[in-house]
Amino acid sequence: MKAISILGSTGSIGCNTLKVVEHLGDVRVVAMAAGRNTEKFVEQIERFSPELVACGDEECAVFLEKAVAKLDKKPRIECGESGLVAVATHPQAETVVSATVGAVGFIPTLRAIEAGKRIALANKETLVMAGELMTAAAASSGAEIVPVDSEHNAIHQCLRGERAGEVRRLILTASGGPFRTWTKERIAAATRKEALDHPNWKMGEKITIDSATLMNKGLEVIEAKWLFGFDADRISVIVHPQSVVHSMIEMIDGSVIAQLGVPDMRHAIQYAITFPVRQEASCGRLDLAAVGKLEFEDPDIERFPCLGLAFEALAAGGTMPAVLNAANEVSVQAFLDGKIGFDHIGETNRRVMREHTPTPADTLAAVLAADTWARERAIMAIGPAAAGTSGKN
Amino acid sequence: MKAISILGSTGSIGCNTLKVVEHLGDVRVVAMAAGRNTEKFVEQIERFSPELVACGDEECAVFLEKAVAKLDKKPRIECGESGLVAVATHPQAETVVSATVGAVGFIPTLRAIEAGKRIALANKETLVMAGELMTAAAASSGAEIVPVDSEHNAIHQCLRGERAGEVRRLILTASGGPFRTWTKERIAAATRKEALDHPNWKMGEKITIDSATLMNKGLEVIEAKWLFGFDADRISVIVHPQSVVHSMIEMIDGSVIAQLGVPDMRHAIQYAITFPVRQEASCGRLDLAAVGKLEFEDPDIERFPCLGLAFEALAAGGTMPAVLNAANEVSVQAFLDGKIGFDHIGETNRRVMREHTPTPADTLAAVLAADTWARERAIMAIGPAAAGTSGKN
Repeated sequence: MKAISILGSTGSIGCNTLKVVEHLGDVRVVAMAAGRNTEKFVEQIERFSPELVACGDEECAVFLEKAVAKLDKKPRIECGESGLVAVATHPQAETVVSATVGAVGFIPTLRAIEAGKRIALANKETLVMAGELMTAAAASSGAEIVPVDSEHNAIHQCLRGERAGEVRRLILTASGGPFRTWTKERIAAATRKEALDHPNWKMGEKITIDSATLMNKGLEVIEAKWLFGFDADRISVIVHPQSVVHSMIEMIDGSVIAQLGVPDMRHAIQYAITFPVRQEASCGRLDLAAVGKLEFEDPDIERFPCLGLAFEALAAGGTMPAVLNAANEVSVQAFLDGKIGFDHIGETNRRVMREHTPTPADTLAAVLAADTWARERAIMAIGPAAAGTSGKN
Repeated sequence: MKAISILGSTGSIGCNTLKVVEHLGDVRVVAMAAGRNTEKFVEQIERFSPELVACGDEECAVFLEKAVAKLDKKPRIECGESGLVAVATHPQAETVVSATVGAVGFIPTLRAIEAGKRIALANKETLVMAGELMTAAAASSGAEIVPVDSEHNAIHQCLRGERAGEVRRLILTASGGPFRTWTKERIAAATRKEALDHPNWKMGEKITIDSATLMNKGLEVIEAKWLFGFDADRISVIVHPQSVVHSMIEMIDGSVIAQLGVPDMRHAIQYAITFPVRQEASCGRLDLAAVGKLEFEDPDIERFPCLGLAFEALAAGGTMPAVLNAANEVSVQAFLDGKIGFDHIGETNRRVMREHTPTPADTLAAVLAADTWARERAIMAIGPAAAGTSGKN
């Protein structure tokens, strides 16, 4: 029986991971960590009986202690970053599902990589912030990183059996988000509700906003560089509204290999846990005749500037991707909080990038310093005066 | 430098093979065989200087002798089936491109398989008539069969890196041919010219008619069974008018892997010659945004009965697929000659199948006897009275 631990069990990926665990039957959850959704977390603890759980802070820990007091098999409870690290490095876990949102998953995931775990990676900030560090650590420990993002997971599948030197480029598909057909002006005035209404995927709020700005695709381009060792000029993005083709690779002989499926995150999660074996899935099968048509178009950097910023950050290198990522976390939160308009997300990210001179991202300290610096600059760029300008609903 | 021989060098696949040879640069043509297109054949002989050539009959051989007399490097000339076999088993050829149309390629291809050659297989009758014999011979000699049909070639590519037990089914795409959107009545009255007007592929006449009836897809279903070891209930057909997705496989975990490319036969030919290596291609690159959309629909067995006949023949087993293939060769030729209407192709095939009781197809004699029997029955079924009923133009 396989043993896994989960960072971020109450989020969208975390909940789907637990569904996959129930479906597979031969996987045990030995440790899990969650943030502030303690009620759901208690339910999960009751159902999956992990040996170790970690939560956000002392207050949550006290709540959890009381909630699990009645259980026959009480888990050990930890909190904060050390708690996340304990979950990520639990000795029995062969695979760590890294599914926290944002920079909080960064250090625990690095520790899991250093411990040589299989990483089922859903936290994209890990590679965006510190791809160089992470991939060096993985090379050193032998940790295998299998991406859970449907796009990277698709590319991982397409690359099976292919020789690295024979791949010309990676082609990431993007749904185009809810504003794909909107004018620039209409996008600028988009509300929180409109931005959260993703056409194909049910995901967390942060990533859904990132899908609407195409920042999500930009972060995936950066991630792809580190996961697969391809430079930006060998990574393309194509808009594909149906989200049925999850991504593709183009070979030097002109052949394009694509991975398709229903838009259900459980597929990629299961693949990352069972790889290199494939097992029967719980989710539905693709019926292409029922889908009828698949559309493709080139992305419009003019209307979706965040995608262009990601390519710029990758070209600038060093700490620049970490700075873009941190600025974006702040600007997206500001949009969700109604402090800035939708178009100010990209503008804020751009302003912070313009102010940054990248330095090498080869130490943890450099990456974290860049992250902190960018958050501060983004908060300054947003400012109190911007509150309530637009984006509220 | 690789050495290849070509069966059917003046046909569509043969000519494209020679273009690939010129593009690759490191491949030598040591032997080639062609039918009655002697003028083109002479040009090819001058250009590629093979050591051995074979043509249809003594008359052609005499013509060739005269035509090559002026060459510095004169090839040895043979004719008939023994000539084809000599080309197919040329000692220096590592790879044999089997690209004759119809049953004439059957025995030479079998001999090449027995000689342990890599077979770049474009002649589908080989596996349709005697899949059991051919695959047994390949297993015994170690010959590797790499299909050149874009659909099977796509599946060959999709299967790289996958475990056989984890593939749920093969999904062959079909363009749907020129009559995809036509009514049954309109299809019945289709002319020779209309049937030869294939929307995507430029191919020989026989295979173009087979595309219009979907018999081509039916023969591919039978071929796929033998190439990949999948029974009929694990082979699906989906109509995809753009012919960009060349075929797909569905894995047990719900993942679908597809191979896409421009509709250019040179791709699959090159792949079959260079496999497992991929080399830079001479043909164009796929631009999905320019293609815009890919459509999919279920095939309609009612309007295209030949596809259903193929599944029936596969289910009946033994000599039935060989009988269907032979009847179809006769009925397609009769249509091309203006002797029968388009709808009579399927009707003739069905009549001959109804009259046949399948026997095991485990000997060459059984397969050839069934082939001969079916041709005679088809000719009888067509009869002189049918001449000129429709289909002329």
